[in-house]
Amino acid sequence: MSDQIEPIATMAQELNRLPGIGKKTAQRLAYFIVSMPLEEVRSLAVAIWEGRKAIRFCKTCGNYAAGEQCSVCSDPQRHNGQVCVVRDPRDVAALERMHDYAGLYHVLHGTLSPMNGIGPEDIHIQELLTRIETEHLSEVILATNPDVEGEATASYIARLVKPLGVRCTRIAHGIPVGGDLEYTDEVTLLKALQGRHEM
Amino acid sequence: MSDQIEPIATMAQELNRLPGIGKKTAQRLAYFIVSMPLEEVRSLAVAIWEGRKAIRFCKTCGNYAAGEQCSVCSDPQRHNGQVCVVRDPRDVAALERMHDYAGLYHVLHGTLSPMNGIGPEDIHIQELLTRIETEHLSEVILATNPDVEGEATASYIARLVKPLGVRCTRIAHGIPVGGDLEYTDEVTLLKALQGRHEM
Repeated sequence: MSDQIEPIATMAQELNRLPGIGKKTAQRLAYFIVSMPLEEVRSLAVAIWEGRKAIRFCKTCGNYAAGEQCSVCSDPQRHNGQVCVVRDPRDVAALERMHDYAGLYHVLHGTLSPMNGIGPEDIHIQELLTRIETEHLSEVILATNPDVEGEATASYIARLVKPLGVRCTRIAHGIPVGGDLEYTDEVTLLKALQGRHEM
Repeated sequence: MSDQIEPIATMAQELNRLPGIGKKTAQRLAYFIVSMPLEEVRSLAVAIWEGRKAIRFCKTCGNYAAGEQCSVCSDPQRHNGQVCVVRDPRDVAALERMHDYAGLYHVLHGTLSPMNGIGPEDIHIQELLTRIETEHLSEVILATNPDVEGEATASYIARLVKPLGVRCTRIAHGIPVGGDLEYTDEVTLLKALQGRHEM
């Protein structure tokens, strides 16, 4: 029996590296792509390659940027003294979708993880401390994930930031909007209770 | 609030054109791609673009091919007098995955659809009739889909092929393996009953 057509097989193999794209999906996509007009396939390939080449890290906050600085850092209206500390650029994108936060970001590019040999000098903590001084920041919002490593990283940074006389806050944990008490785990329930506020 | 980073937005927009890749998945993929090593992104983009450029239609059967002829037609062991007629190259891939069929294919590139103005001259029927004569084919297996257009196309071709003294067969319809009588529609059940065989 004959094998699969080579260029389609190669294409499927490459697509298969992407997250959530299994073997079958990759083959379906490859077959779709070869049936697309040449010009459209060209823009797809160019967008992927040129896009990847164009992306660098913002020299100020570490977010993805098309130039030297990301769109947040280069916006003078965002310099209000607040800086939101996140693990990676994806988290910046998630927070930006909210269209409400008006301050800056600081991307750590990781979280403390002694088990994996990631210590404070491996993530961008020193850069944050420098920014607090040079940019005269007034509030550091710790928005690392509410998991063990994220919590440990937040506590570690808080201990360094507080002595600098800067307000240091942590995003709230609790029951997600639309969530259900019955199906919420105990730790989240505890956090929700601890974080209760007056009505 | 600042917008999404431009190269990532463009990449997501292009990925969004692919089937089954919604806006959210496209953005997730774009973020993943910009975090991939440059070399890997290069091979992905090259596989897509070069793969699309390399693909043409087999001059004999109409299947996708990397050269003049597809891998099936260029394999001398596959010339056993059988030709399996399918709607498009994707169907060839599906049948090849079975690793059992040892004959040739003929890709119609469509099915008869008077409603959409697709007549016999719009799909590769004449080419099939020519092949029956020049290649001395002994059996035409009609493997168009078991829907209205596929059935109509199969009947139409059968009426042209039979007078040529060639065996003309249609793939069986029935209950899929692993299927359930209770959840099978009436037409499929009828076909399964009509197609019953001795045990």
